[in-house]
Amino acid sequence: MEKYAEDWRTCFADEAVPLPLLKQRAFNLRWAEQPDDVIPLTAADPDFPIAEPIREALIRHVRDGVMSYAPAQGLPVFREAVAEWLSVHKHYPCTADQVIATDSAAAAMETVARLLLGRGDEAIIFDPVDFLFATVTTRTGADVVRIPISTQSSDDEIIARLHCAQSRRTRVLWLCNPHNPLGRVFSRSLLERIGQWAIEHQITVVSDEIWSDIVYTPHHHTAIASLFPQQARHFISIYGFSKNFALAGLRIACIVTGSQRWRQMMLEQSGANATIAGANVLAQMAVVAALTEARGWLQAFVVHLQQQRDLACARINQWPGVSVHKPQGTYVLFPNIALLSDDSELLCAELLAEAQVALVPGASRWFGPGARGHLRLCLATSKQLLSEALDRLTPVIHRLAEQRSDLRQRLGSKEQQTA
Amino acid sequence: MEKYAEDWRTCFADEAVPLPLLKQRAFNLRWAEQPDDVIPLTAADPDFPIAEPIREALIRHVRDGVMSYAPAQGLPVFREAVAEWLSVHKHYPCTADQVIATDSAAAAMETVARLLLGRGDEAIIFDPVDFLFATVTTRTGADVVRIPISTQSSDDEIIARLHCAQSRRTRVLWLCNPHNPLGRVFSRSLLERIGQWAIEHQITVVSDEIWSDIVYTPHHHTAIASLFPQQARHFISIYGFSKNFALAGLRIACIVTGSQRWRQMMLEQSGANATIAGANVLAQMAVVAALTEARGWLQAFVVHLQQQRDLACARINQWPGVSVHKPQGTYVLFPNIALLSDDSELLCAELLAEAQVALVPGASRWFGPGARGHLRLCLATSKQLLSEALDRLTPVIHRLAEQRSDLRQRLGSKEQQTA
Repeated sequence: MEKYAEDWRTCFADEAVPLPLLKQRAFNLRWAEQPDDVIPLTAADPDFPIAEPIREALIRHVRDGVMSYAPAQGLPVFREAVAEWLSVHKHYPCTADQVIATDSAAAAMETVARLLLGRGDEAIIFDPVDFLFATVTTRTGADVVRIPISTQSSDDEIIARLHCAQSRRTRVLWLCNPHNPLGRVFSRSLLERIGQWAIEHQITVVSDEIWSDIVYTPHHHTAIASLFPQQARHFISIYGFSKNFALAGLRIACIVTGSQRWRQMMLEQSGANATIAGANVLAQMAVVAALTEARGWLQAFVVHLQQQRDLACARINQWPGVSVHKPQGTYVLFPNIALLSDDSELLCAELLAEAQVALVPGASRWFGPGARGHLRLCLATSKQLLSEALDRLTPVIHRLAEQRSDLRQRLGSKEQQTA
Repeated sequence: MEKYAEDWRTCFADEAVPLPLLKQRAFNLRWAEQPDDVIPLTAADPDFPIAEPIREALIRHVRDGVMSYAPAQGLPVFREAVAEWLSVHKHYPCTADQVIATDSAAAAMETVARLLLGRGDEAIIFDPVDFLFATVTTRTGADVVRIPISTQSSDDEIIARLHCAQSRRTRVLWLCNPHNPLGRVFSRSLLERIGQWAIEHQITVVSDEIWSDIVYTPHHHTAIASLFPQQARHFISIYGFSKNFALAGLRIACIVTGSQRWRQMMLEQSGANATIAGANVLAQMAVVAALTEARGWLQAFVVHLQQQRDLACARINQWPGVSVHKPQGTYVLFPNIALLSDDSELLCAELLAEAQVALVPGASRWFGPGARGHLRLCLATSKQLLSEALDRLTPVIHRLAEQRSDLRQRLGSKEQQTA
């Protein structure tokens, strides 16, 4: 019988973070790539080990010892588990044949980009947003059209910007829902309007929903594809299992679409039909266990993350010249540091050198030009490590704020504006 | 301490084949995709479970529970194990920084093809050869130039054909050494001549050496790159771990080249630097265990395969209208059935229906036009299953031979020729 969230709390206790192992095995700007005294709040990847039922399922599969080829589309048991999870837990009715297993969400995005885009085409992306949306688009030769978004943008503004950005060359709208790095969870009513706009203009909405399990009360994730079951060819969804179940190193995700034609074309174009692309069988079995036996672990993880979010936002909002919105979903914060520094790269370098905390600068190469004046930090660690990182950052931020010769003046004019 | 080959013999006994598990988990034209009564000798993938030290290493890594991101180029421990294995056991001196982990050998071939080839370029491949060489070439827009090869082709013939095939547009020669499906292991002296020709004409030799551990006495595998250490940019090697260690489902291989420029370009072009491509961490750890703790298992596997080869060749050469050469390496046989049938697809369908044995037809889509008049069958099963398959095939082949109205006449003229 599945355990409830409270039984999993200890999985997210301070002592659950296996620091010596992370320092050997957590790459991508994290523990294994930092000097020994640095706390990395960089890549969005949990510091916690994977859930016990996933480990047990992997061990069972390994003991059996058969590691033969999987089908091009993924193991039936994987596709069935994903379809059940989407249908029952995400209100997105879907069948196993609509699911394609992929080697990471990034690879899924590349596959979809190659399917839908080419030279002369345009894809609309939000700005800021994770760099992969622009990367996979430009790798096809297509052009990126960015529309600004913030935590404050109204639905009307977003729809108006879509209309302005759209041209005869627009083929794709890339959604990131919940949104990295803003933490915004798109409302059902906004998604309905976006979907109608896409159908009207013959545009395909590709929705990266890798963060859809990390949503905080009272917000709810809605899969845009679930709102338009009769318009399958306009909606492709991507789900990953790195953020929710800490499986980044296993490189496992999936593409879901009701369009059989898109699926067949993706299997051909990605090379999956020729074994050039595909997903590791152990990774697929890990996801089966995650979705069927580790939902309680995930619930406890979200409870822990909400506490982390509230702790960090309260402290960061006390820093001079820095402000942050509480994310509705995701476990990244995206504080505005524009009043503190004109150059987030430089600020990150200073914080690394002086506070021994590694953060992601709001650089164009990471999130687009709209990230200017921000930093990103990841909350998926223990309360102790997050507190320690904030303790280290606080005096350095204060010192930097005092050093900025014109800061007092700018703060003064800000106070006048908001008065 | 590592066990010797004889200690591993039971791993390849009849009872070691886990049929119920294979019927659930072995896809790609194998057990899980065939009717229950069919023996598949199709995809080149062993019917044996992975070696115990690999399972133990995987279980240890899974128990630790950290599944964080790997570096773009692969885990250091993976790259070091590969470099040591090449240097010590394959006489190919190489360092860890020359190794890039990839998600399968097929993905490695695609990455190299995209690096070196584009529209207007030509790549030379042998004919017949595994379909992937043509597939990854044409996917870049480049043209395939095929040169005939057989088990009988002399070194002079091969070199002469390279000279004829070469043009100003030739960028790549794809080698498959040992050669699938011919089972030929290229001699050191031929490889020296091929390498000199490539350097002279500014061509890069991309050598798929996924079969290099499956070589039978008295033959030896030579890595062509090892012969030209000063000409790194003309040689790229690909090694996989599906054929030797039965890890197809883990999708793990590597690219090795002494050219730092090629490596940097591949990491960028494949998307590895952006997490779009990469290799699963468990798969990488499986290879570390394979190369450091399972070489005895591999030796025993090759001993078993040599017995399978000898058994099958002896029996197949007794079939009317069929002849087969003993492969020097690989665990595939490529019998000539031209006297028995004009259509290997039709013959395979008949053999499947009447003998309940699945084979790979010598169709152009699998091996190129030079495969006409052949079948391919895989030996990597138990003696019992191979014998059973041959027992089933024998009477059907005899019956088909009798049915071919003109076969007697053709055999007569063949006997006259050879008399």
